[in-house]
Amino acid sequence: METPALIVDKDIFEANMDAMTSLLSGTTLKLRPHYKSNKCAAIARRQIEHGAVGITCAKLSEALDLCDAGIENILIANQITDGEKIFRVALLAKKCHLIICVDDKDNARALSAAAVSCGSTVYCYVEYEIGMRRCGIEDDEEYIETAELIRELPGLKYAGIQAYAGHVSHMVTEEERREHTEKEQQKIRALKEKLIEHGFPKDLDISGGSTGTAVIKAAGGLYTELQAGSYLFLDSTYGGLQNLPFKNSLYVLSTVVSVRGNRVMLDAGVKSIGVDQGMPAVLKLEGTPVRCSLVDANEEHVKLFDPDTELKNGEKVLLIPGHCCSTVNLYDKMYFVRGGKVVDRLEITARGCSR
Amino acid sequence: METPALIVDKDIFEANMDAMTSLLSGTTLKLRPHYKSNKCAAIARRQIEHGAVGITCAKLSEALDLCDAGIENILIANQITDGEKIFRVALLAKKCHLIICVDDKDNARALSAAAVSCGSTVYCYVEYEIGMRRCGIEDDEEYIETAELIRELPGLKYAGIQAYAGHVSHMVTEEERREHTEKEQQKIRALKEKLIEHGFPKDLDISGGSTGTAVIKAAGGLYTELQAGSYLFLDSTYGGLQNLPFKNSLYVLSTVVSVRGNRVMLDAGVKSIGVDQGMPAVLKLEGTPVRCSLVDANEEHVKLFDPDTELKNGEKVLLIPGHCCSTVNLYDKMYFVRGGKVVDRLEITARGCSR
Repeated sequence: METPALIVDKDIFEANMDAMTSLLSGTTLKLRPHYKSNKCAAIARRQIEHGAVGITCAKLSEALDLCDAGIENILIANQITDGEKIFRVALLAKKCHLIICVDDKDNARALSAAAVSCGSTVYCYVEYEIGMRRCGIEDDEEYIETAELIRELPGLKYAGIQAYAGHVSHMVTEEERREHTEKEQQKIRALKEKLIEHGFPKDLDISGGSTGTAVIKAAGGLYTELQAGSYLFLDSTYGGLQNLPFKNSLYVLSTVVSVRGNRVMLDAGVKSIGVDQGMPAVLKLEGTPVRCSLVDANEEHVKLFDPDTELKNGEKVLLIPGHCCSTVNLYDKMYFVRGGKVVDRLEITARGCSR
Repeated sequence: METPALIVDKDIFEANMDAMTSLLSGTTLKLRPHYKSNKCAAIARRQIEHGAVGITCAKLSEALDLCDAGIENILIANQITDGEKIFRVALLAKKCHLIICVDDKDNARALSAAAVSCGSTVYCYVEYEIGMRRCGIEDDEEYIETAELIRELPGLKYAGIQAYAGHVSHMVTEEERREHTEKEQQKIRALKEKLIEHGFPKDLDISGGSTGTAVIKAAGGLYTELQAGSYLFLDSTYGGLQNLPFKNSLYVLSTVVSVRGNRVMLDAGVKSIGVDQGMPAVLKLEGTPVRCSLVDANEEHVKLFDPDTELKNGEKVLLIPGHCCSTVNLYDKMYFVRGGKVVDRLEITARGCSR
């Protein structure tokens, strides 16, 4: 196979899918997996067949890809503020059950106006800031006012709380993740009670969570939807976390293109492997780790220091990406392998869908 | 226009193209611009029309794209060591004047065997290590032995020295860049003399250089080919360099999607802007810099601290990418604008061509 190539170990991928089903079975937590990690319509369909209530995505263009692939329940877990895009959201809401995140009253009014003129209903999760310091409303009073405004506005339906704590996802020890998650859940529980006092339904959705906090959220009994995406693949960053019920299934196959003493250059760089969360791990083709240090990643190369001159020129190696999501977005196809053979080639249908 | 979108200021782009023509006119240095920066066949064709002797690229898949677009003289400025790819190199050499970099004798032998069986001639630059510590031979004796081997091997032609000093390209002061370049040129000059003593022609090609060292290489009289690519666009990293005859023409158009106090989130992140060489600069649509600090870039957001609460929700801003090459590779199209209007939309034909 020509390198660099994106490879998925199908057995482990399927075991990860089953591990998630087991984790959530018997709990009140439903899976709404994030599309940003796989961007592959065939995988999204498979997740729905395995019991997911819908799919989470980051961008309108991803939502359009999902709807086009027959996914009927879609959450865009971000704000959309551009006037024309707001109309496209309202139009898409005629074709599927569409939920969008809101953290601003004027944005809610603009969404309402668009939904009314398109004759659609746009479901809204009002985003709650629980420590990530990205989007979302921190103040409970402002949160409730915004939810009440959405309840009143025509064309919109308040559907629940978006509460995503991406910053907790990669904390190494389970204790750390648990401690942070429990604090956040207290804050969310208090908000939920206030919302109920203001006449919102008791069974409102609370959506968030990730691969790193899946176990804790499943046991917590508060969240109704889990937005994990990376659990199917993992990466070298998740590989450093304690007590995850998932295993690494994703690799970039790469070739050694130059060996000069202990300096080894591979044919994969930042244009073919995501290093935004850390450097990749290097394995021999049979799966054993190469004892080397990663010196650098540039556009088309990863540079290794190979103290034992273990790697030979032309040799193939497996890289575990530092970040699965940004890596997948660099490829058009992923190859599923089993027993050393390609058994499937899936199109990454939403590759580059950042609009 | 939907955001994030890749925008090129056509006037500045054309001024950069002209500035390069002026810089090289009257010198012995020819332009062999690097495809990695624009990955756009229409731009490569235009560079050839403007006097480039050929195009440099990083990967076989980029070379195939260039040949498919009618480019007749192509340098793959990297080593190719995979057995099947070596055959594809030999096949491609039947369709165009193809030069490839070599730093290993066994690799030269494999290329020769493939060229013989395909009935083609593969031109080789033997790569010389001049301080970047990536690929390339450091020892002069080994260099000359490898060049001599290539001279003897059927199907191959030794064509010159690849000497690329990427590490010098981004040094801030011109003095620093000049000092390093002059040291390297001494080393190359000495090698060239030894090669001539060993019967290699006096007019052998010396290929390398970048946007940051173009002025110095043009005045140096040693290099015969300049591999600059970024000069058409620049980026925020090049923007910090002294005395470049080029200006920034490349932007990512982005929308503010959330304003929470001084915290502003944009709709472009590492999936739509390359941050591998630094964070982007932020400008208002009319081109004035926004006084803000960039806190973070994650998958789909850049996070700003906006001390003057200058930016409004839904507002469009221009980002100057930290790295033009890795940014262009994330898009399928680039929009050329003039006077606030789109006047061209070019396909990024080699987007994702990392094989």
